[in-house]
Amino acid sequence: MKNALGREIPDRIGERAPRPFSGAFETVPTGRKAPRPQKTVKPGENKVLGSIEEAIEASGLRSGMTISFHHSFRNGDYLVNMVVDACARMGIGDLRLFPTALFPVHEPLIEHIKNGVVSRIEGSMNGPVGAFVSQGGKLKQPAVLRSHGGRWRAIEAGDVHIDVAFIAAPQADPYGNATGIKGKTPCGPITFCAVDAQHAEKTVVVTNDLQPYPVYPFEIQQGWTDYVVVVDEIGDPASIASGTLKITRSPTRLKIARLAAAAVKASGYFKDGFSFQGGAGGISLAATKFVGEEMEREGIVGSFAMGGGTKLLVDILHRGLVRAILDGQAFDTDAIASLREDKNHVLMDPGHYANYDSRGCATYMLDAAFLGATEVDLDFNVNVNTHSDGQLLHGIGGHQDVAAGAKLTLITVPTLRGRLPVIVDRVTTVTTPGEVIDAIVTERGIAVNPRREDLKERFVKAGLPVRELAEIKAEADRLTRPPGRPVFGDEVIAVIEWRDGTVIDTVRRVVGWK
Amino acid sequence: MKNALGREIPDRIGERAPRPFSGAFETVPTGRKAPRPQKTVKPGENKVLGSIEEAIEASGLRSGMTISFHHSFRNGDYLVNMVVDACARMGIGDLRLFPTALFPVHEPLIEHIKNGVVSRIEGSMNGPVGAFVSQGGKLKQPAVLRSHGGRWRAIEAGDVHIDVAFIAAPQADPYGNATGIKGKTPCGPITFCAVDAQHAEKTVVVTNDLQPYPVYPFEIQQGWTDYVVVVDEIGDPASIASGTLKITRSPTRLKIARLAAAAVKASGYFKDGFSFQGGAGGISLAATKFVGEEMEREGIVGSFAMGGGTKLLVDILHRGLVRAILDGQAFDTDAIASLREDKNHVLMDPGHYANYDSRGCATYMLDAAFLGATEVDLDFNVNVNTHSDGQLLHGIGGHQDVAAGAKLTLITVPTLRGRLPVIVDRVTTVTTPGEVIDAIVTERGIAVNPRREDLKERFVKAGLPVRELAEIKAEADRLTRPPGRPVFGDEVIAVIEWRDGTVIDTVRRVVGWK
Repeated sequence: MKNALGREIPDRIGERAPRPFSGAFETVPTGRKAPRPQKTVKPGENKVLGSIEEAIEASGLRSGMTISFHHSFRNGDYLVNMVVDACARMGIGDLRLFPTALFPVHEPLIEHIKNGVVSRIEGSMNGPVGAFVSQGGKLKQPAVLRSHGGRWRAIEAGDVHIDVAFIAAPQADPYGNATGIKGKTPCGPITFCAVDAQHAEKTVVVTNDLQPYPVYPFEIQQGWTDYVVVVDEIGDPASIASGTLKITRSPTRLKIARLAAAAVKASGYFKDGFSFQGGAGGISLAATKFVGEEMEREGIVGSFAMGGGTKLLVDILHRGLVRAILDGQAFDTDAIASLREDKNHVLMDPGHYANYDSRGCATYMLDAAFLGATEVDLDFNVNVNTHSDGQLLHGIGGHQDVAAGAKLTLITVPTLRGRLPVIVDRVTTVTTPGEVIDAIVTERGIAVNPRREDLKERFVKAGLPVRELAEIKAEADRLTRPPGRPVFGDEVIAVIEWRDGTVIDTVRRVVGWK
Repeated sequence: MKNALGREIPDRIGERAPRPFSGAFETVPTGRKAPRPQKTVKPGENKVLGSIEEAIEASGLRSGMTISFHHSFRNGDYLVNMVVDACARMGIGDLRLFPTALFPVHEPLIEHIKNGVVSRIEGSMNGPVGAFVSQGGKLKQPAVLRSHGGRWRAIEAGDVHIDVAFIAAPQADPYGNATGIKGKTPCGPITFCAVDAQHAEKTVVVTNDLQPYPVYPFEIQQGWTDYVVVVDEIGDPASIASGTLKITRSPTRLKIARLAAAAVKASGYFKDGFSFQGGAGGISLAATKFVGEEMEREGIVGSFAMGGGTKLLVDILHRGLVRAILDGQAFDTDAIASLREDKNHVLMDPGHYANYDSRGCATYMLDAAFLGATEVDLDFNVNVNTHSDGQLLHGIGGHQDVAAGAKLTLITVPTLRGRLPVIVDRVTTVTTPGEVIDAIVTERGIAVNPRREDLKERFVKAGLPVRELAEIKAEADRLTRPPGRPVFGDEVIAVIEWRDGTVIDTVRRVVGWK
């Protein structure tokens, strides 16, 4: 069958009978959420265990089960490898891995996939694990990728049942309260796993900084936590505090960022109470900076900025340009310190941020957002998951959730990356449908989605370089040779879910090249 | 049948097949919690309605349904009466009222009970409504009283299904985020209803201070809120900021408070990391003050104090005597301001505070607590619900939860109130079983529960006036004439639940006097 975007969705994908994507807001969830397990404890009961192995043993984890993790340490995470290694040593295999996201640091998982310790993955795969899975024939079931909000929804809806949640906690107390914004190696909020902790049969908090009761904020709560394990290290804090979050210095990208900021200013949303999501990519950071400067110049006081938190956003808060930051992740140490100290820097879990199955998520209150893409196409569909060579190398993050919510969603992309065109006839994979994209901002001009004639008029009136997307594409294509394209086989190696649980696209195995 | 305390529990109580109380920690909850309703909303959808009536209409509320409320405005609450009046005007009746607690201000409900608008009540009834219900024959089903933790548990377990939750919110935004610690008339945290908002079919936030998005802290979350209604007034803030929370000046009660503080000091728990619950009654306040002074004198730094928050606790925090306050309620404006401003004054919902069906609640981490009683008996059972005339005049509050959790639970009571003895052979109603009470502190000495020989030894060694409870009772009895006792009929007018959902006692209709 074909979904609403014309993408071919098999009737069955592995053990799954997929619901095809039918439009960004067409699904109406009914019925009830999945019931959470009852838990109890008597006063004085000890939860602290001596090792990961002891916790695995106590949790009842067996082959074939599902284990989950958060990604707040990103490429500095140690826990996923530690736990899977321990399972391998203990003879536990055929595991379904359900992380929020994997990174290059998780490359050792490839061996565990080969030897059957890990047989399924549901979660974003950034880098080598994704490349490995892209080869096909590696997993028992196709991988499943979900947005931040989509993952929260899937757990609450019962689409994924977690047997044991393992939660890396930069600080925890012996009763299982845990936070990511304190401790020896703070990684930012760990509320990504708050939904895991509530739904998992067993929840294991793993910390390198056990402190006396009570540890707060209660990002993970004692009432959800079965066991607490203390280890020497859970992650590399340098991966959080790194200087990777630099504003772009590329003149092309700076030009795109300036255009994006100008588009925001001209959009009609730029007034007191304005709200925006500041991203963490080079162009987004620059655009956020320019928007902040523009707010200051025009004397506009925004309502809120949304993270991932950065020093840049914290500065914007401190300069009084917004009343609050709402944050589910932190991308640098300034943002973490601000979350600890400033009551107007508000911790928000991904359900609050982005859950489709709720009576409102924060992205729906956004005026403007800057998002990236690996490819965009003439229908304004956006790909952030695969490269044009067909390899699955990136997660979804909050892309779908923010694009669906923001009144003005701008995709900020250069028209060429190296010799590869970014605007294509048809994206390799649809992550986010064109219906929720308002404009593509490139160094060659701004293309406005035909659904937004109102916006186009405003941009034209403001003297912005508004052009047809096809025209920008043609101009870029002339500068490079037509790239080769992958030939796909039948095997579905990954399912891309839309944030409502429907299947927006699949990723198939690359079998050739033309 | 008889429960573990020998109290007669009918096989059926109204429509209910009661589980008899079998011991403070005997129940092991199994299975799963009640599934919460799925909800959704599209971006741009408006939640703000023009009146309570419109919200009632939109919510689908019909006769026979269940509506819920919090009690954070206590005797200053306007919302319960407003909503029930509106239901009456709209011809909606046979309602089950499910407030956390009712107060004298809710006396107009008596008319609504008489005319059938309200036919059932589950919740604490402080004052006239309780007295009215005590007369018998008023409600279609016996009332049900639960502790703070017990009520949270009952909702999560599915024992009570809420059709519409009405939440008085001192500040809210149009998307349904709401807080009780900001606004024109702050009443303290409103997280008592966080569990209602998540489980109710529909959730209505009623505010007198609508502010632009986002309003935080997110005590009530947008994702749970269906409708927002703005009204002129939701409650009388003077009922919060009142001077009723005065430290006792009665020499007898001060003596009890000093003895209680001395007992804490001698208990073995009084050392660095010490934690305690500071109550809001006159004796508890005084005891809290004395304990704070003792901590300062001895150079002890506690881990946490637990509210209801008061100026007294805030001072103890500011003097560095504890690292944190954990608070689910605020009893004065200083506590509310502190919750707004101090990251170490931590908001805690009643589930975190007191839920039996969880992997740990905060009361289980308490070293010491001071609690009151209307009566205590020779088995150390405590009554806080009825007076010795059989009238149901008080709620349970956190009494059961704290007594069950604290390592040292002291009941601080005078031996006589007016001419009535407080220590009796058998309490009129058991609220909290003797097995979780460690000592009774009176102006005539301290009686230690025989289960705590260790404690008795410590008290004796410290030179405290340790006496047998029967001896104290006899001494008090000699000072007054034996009071009359009510004669009870068969009709059960109220069920007292233990915090695990079992029935610890029933309250029967008074039919005579002897």
